Amino acid sequence: MTTPEVHMEKEIIKYLSAQQCSVQWRAFLEVFSQELTQQLTVTNLRGLMRRSGERFANQHPLPATETIAALQEAINVVWRSQNWGGASIVEDGTRLIIKHYLSPLQSGMPEGATWASGFLEGVYEQWMHQSGADLSLHVTQSRLADDLGTVEYSFGK
Amino acid sequence: MTTPEVHMEKEIIKYLSAQQCSVQWRAFLEVFSQELTQQLTVTNLRGLMRRSGERFANQHPLPATETIAALQEAINVVWRSQNWGGASIVEDGTRLIIKHYLSPLQSGMPEGATWASGFLEGVYEQWMHQSGADLSLHVTQSRLADDLGTVEYSFGK
Amino acid sequence: MTTPEVHMEKEIIKYLSAQQCSVQWRAFLEVFSQELTQQLTVTNLRGLMRRSGERFANQHPLPATETIAALQEAINVVWRSQNWGGASIVEDGTRLIIKHYLSPLQSGMPEGATWASGFLEGVYEQWMHQSGADLSLHVTQSRLADDLGTVEYSFGK
Amino acid sequence: MTTPEVHMEKEIIKYLSAQQCSVQWRAFLEVFSQELTQQLTVTNLRGLMRRSGERFANQHPLPATETIAALQEAINVVWRSQNWGGASIVEDGTRLIIKHYLSPLQSGMPEGATWASGFLEGVYEQWMHQSGADLSLHVTQSRLADDLGTVEYSFGK
Repeated sequence: MTTPEVHMEKEIIKYLSAQQCSVQWRAFLEVFSQELTQQLTVTNLRGLMRRSGERFANQHPLPATETIAALQEAINVVWRSQNWGGASIVEDGTRLIIKHYLSPLQSGMPEGATWASGFLEGVYEQWMHQSGADLSLHVTQSRLADDLGTVEYSFGK
Repeated sequence: MTTPEVHMEKEIIKYLSAQQCSVQWRAFLEVFSQELTQQLTVTNLRGLMRRSGERFANQHPLPATETIAALQEAINVVWRSQNWGGASIVEDGTRLIIKHYLSPLQSGMPEGATWASGFLEGVYEQWMHQSGADLSLHVTQSRLADDLGTVEYSFGK
Repeated sequence: MTTPEVHMEKEIIKYLSAQQCSVQWRAFLEVFSQELTQQLTVTNLRGLMRRSGERFANQHPLPATETIAALQEAINVVWRSQNWGGASIVEDGTRLIIKHYLSPLQSGMPEGATWASGFLEGVYEQWMHQSGADLSLHVTQSRLADDLGTVEYSFGK
Repeated sequence: MTTPEVHMEKEIIKYLSAQQCSVQWRAFLEVFSQELTQQLTVTNLRGLMRRSGERFANQHPLPATETIAALQEAINVVWRSQNWGGASIVEDGTRLIIKHYLSPLQSGMPEGATWASGFLEGVYEQWMHQSGADLSLHVTQSRLADDLGTVEYSFGK
């Protein structure tokens, strides 16, 4: 049985999640991505998103930073200026785990459009390479989005 | 010589135009449309936009209306709910002239992306056909955007 | 010791809370409420807020509803149209417990301005009286705001 | 007789003007300012707004500038960051004429609340004094708002 408390929390999460993507673009993104999937394969679309992300990173280069905490903050300065949620970065052995919370792409794209998360893969990989990381290291999505739209990416071999 | 008055008016127009597209999507739309033009031809892209527009019209069907003025108002109810500017419709002989002002696509897409205005072509054509117009009649763009981003479309043969 | 997980959740809560009040009004509300406290007592200010809330309720009357669930939904239709968060209502013996989450007043007013929550007291009390509740019953705040800005009100004797 | 062209331009102006004040605060500002006028005189309210404006200027100090053009730009950096429209400043003999366009206070406050324009008087006067202007010089409103909400202020003796 669902208690009122739990019910309200689900309402809050639904409200907050809907709030992440501007009303202006929700309907457009839905129909446009539906048409794109008629025209291009999922692999094509994920690649398109990745390269768009790399382009975004090139247009928003990060300042040089010395620590993971400073890198995380430099990244969040960009995301805050765009209302694109934010990121937390932690080391896990030889990898970096990047969690991006509250991205408007996550809440704005239709549910099946998993290729859309290629965008942040491209952004993060390009930013890591700009910071001097080895070009053989890559960013891949390591976990699906949770209720609030947090997606986990992993950077390494 | 430019007087201060005139200068300020240009500033106002620039400010208002920038305001039409949510900050959240401006940078994304720019890089994404740049990548799309690498992958697809302008003809493909305009078609993609047109069909996306038709899909939008199907998802936002208009109520039946008896007059041009009522049709215009029904259309503007949709656009207002989306922060997508608005439209004026006037008869011109056997044609309808549709002016759409302050569309966020117009101000949000990079300047060269003229194919983007296919979206509103698709929306308006589908809405006209829903209203019982002959399927042989089409919407085409009849004038380029002015400073405030008003685009003129013509519906007829 | 704070784990990264917990740290990120606090970041998310901070981000979401800041997001509730439009950037346009945050600085104005801060300086204006600071000046108000120079001019009026806290009791005056709370009363001013209460009466503003009653006025708001009169300008946004609720449709008649038969159940608590329907009342809650009618209330949330108003709040959603204004981006003012939302409410959950549950019965607790002879009282109604109203939790309002994510009000922009809560996140937009300076921390000390506890009188601001008089606004929602006035709104809810007036709505309850409109719905036919006895005029001797009142709404009072029963719990301070939590981290996400949820405030609890109680309606009864 | 009104031509369709003219009609549409009025529609555009109405749309743009409504857009200046966030939906979230319009209804609140209306009821709150109605209650304030029950409690305080117009002179009190204008003074309250002026001092709120001075406080805002102190919290958003301008960098030192050498020319009117640079001062105007420094001012507009602040207004842009807040979505508060913008200003043009020109010299007129011994006075400065400051036109503020598209302020959300102008479109958000109820029509009769002319005391609200005291806020920008206070902001501009304090900024001028910060820039080293003689304390005997003052900012006063020199023209009422036009259709798009542009208000003219004059700084001098």
